[in-house]
Amino acid sequence: MTLKLGIVGLGLMGGSLALAARQQGVCYEIYAMDPDKAQLDWALSEGIIDVASTELATLLSVDILVLAAPMGVLPRILQQIADIGLPESLCLTDLGSVKASLVDAAVNIFGEMPSNFIPGHPIAGAEKSGVQASRLDLFKNRKVVLTPPANYRPEKLALLQHLWQSVGARVCLMSAHEHDRVYAATSHLPHVLAFAFMNTLCKTLEQDHLRYSVAGGFRDFSRIAASDPVMWRDICLANASALEQSIDAFSNELSALREQIHSGQSDALVRYFDAARQARLDSEEHWLVS
Amino acid sequence: MTLKLGIVGLGLMGGSLALAARQQGVCYEIYAMDPDKAQLDWALSEGIIDVASTELATLLSVDILVLAAPMGVLPRILQQIADIGLPESLCLTDLGSVKASLVDAAVNIFGEMPSNFIPGHPIAGAEKSGVQASRLDLFKNRKVVLTPPANYRPEKLALLQHLWQSVGARVCLMSAHEHDRVYAATSHLPHVLAFAFMNTLCKTLEQDHLRYSVAGGFRDFSRIAASDPVMWRDICLANASALEQSIDAFSNELSALREQIHSGQSDALVRYFDAARQARLDSEEHWLVS
Repeated sequence: MTLKLGIVGLGLMGGSLALAARQQGVCYEIYAMDPDKAQLDWALSEGIIDVASTELATLLSVDILVLAAPMGVLPRILQQIADIGLPESLCLTDLGSVKASLVDAAVNIFGEMPSNFIPGHPIAGAEKSGVQASRLDLFKNRKVVLTPPANYRPEKLALLQHLWQSVGARVCLMSAHEHDRVYAATSHLPHVLAFAFMNTLCKTLEQDHLRYSVAGGFRDFSRIAASDPVMWRDICLANASALEQSIDAFSNELSALREQIHSGQSDALVRYFDAARQARLDSEEHWLVS
Repeated sequence: MTLKLGIVGLGLMGGSLALAARQQGVCYEIYAMDPDKAQLDWALSEGIIDVASTELATLLSVDILVLAAPMGVLPRILQQIADIGLPESLCLTDLGSVKASLVDAAVNIFGEMPSNFIPGHPIAGAEKSGVQASRLDLFKNRKVVLTPPANYRPEKLALLQHLWQSVGARVCLMSAHEHDRVYAATSHLPHVLAFAFMNTLCKTLEQDHLRYSVAGGFRDFSRIAASDPVMWRDICLANASALEQSIDAFSNELSALREQIHSGQSDALVRYFDAARQARLDSEEHWLVS
């Protein structure tokens, strides 16, 4: 089964998908559109894509259209698709980190969730961005969460699963709300904590200490604080409700722990740290076998 | 200048110091004591130490006595040294992660801070523990903070600096209180946050999600949650006051950030994340040159 693939927003993610799908022989033609003409030209010259278009309408003739643009502009692209008319034959998907607010936007725009729109979120990424950073193995053994709506069309889901599996990803299905709750806790929360941690240090430490007194824990802990500010603004706002719940749950944990430290509850502290340690070791064990 | 070195509590840290000091030719004789006879026997058979003793008194004849035992037992060891009598000729030091509470304990035990006791904290460690995990390069290019008391004896400080520099460490001097404030923020705070983060996930996520839905940020963020519970109990209790201040400063940052998310302050969020990002990148740049 080979298909025609369209990518709106050609960066690291879209470029890597195109590269891997082509190499696996899943796609016979790849269309792309992007506001940055240089990125398109480069991808054309490298043979990563076959057709560079500036017209969204041209891309609606493909089998699978992947919205790989920044999350903040996805509602505008959905509106443009609605204005042209979403073909029944298309399987529409995206790569955004938050799902429920995108579904809400789609419902607003289309009147109901289109049965051929299956939102997605590949748990993958790299330090570099841009189509030039594309990698054949970006999705290999990585999880891709798909959140089919209640009225989804099974043949569209099957097509999309086929695409992702062909590039080495492990597809996992959940509802948009479950996705947002789980990734609020495991991904969005640690990013928010890392940003707040770095800014705490900036406000409470002299610059020389911040530069030269970093110690065990600081380096890994603060690495994700160097993540892209605009992308994380979009994620935080799009997943505000689930993220606020995660922040509140964390704040309760932290203030209970502070009280244990303050009142010198020696045994309770060991139990608390040991529970965290066991959970981390148990989780780690499953990464190795999964 | 070669010296006689004594180590009380022979594990990864003490063993690595013995190994490197011997290889650099700084020590002509190394004494050690430890409650675990198997560790001592192994170190003797490997030639890491020359004399294994069960009598603290025997070790008080060395030039530098390093208390490398767990932080929680250091006050008891200081008391035993006081009971025998701390020789003027000795340079006494330790390797604990918290300094001011140890100084307080010493003042209580000796009546005043002994002028030949120079507390220390090497910013080094490894995943494994025990003397068998000793490494020649454990302190190479690592920072060692020494916190000489106001009445310190310069020749003792010089001797201790010589030992640390000979094994490749970069010595840095600060007061015990400054040390505790700085490492509360850069090291103890991130550990506490990682423990609280893991326990938040345990309480708010189903086990399967905790095992299989880990994403960007989770892995680095939670790594330090697998740290030794008893050691971190000791650190938290010994540095409770500075750590509570760090936790409070962090909690204020986090609740301000939560409010920005809740009220959708788009521009403020980008500025906030960007400040954290710049601070992290600036700090990183200095690691490379330092």
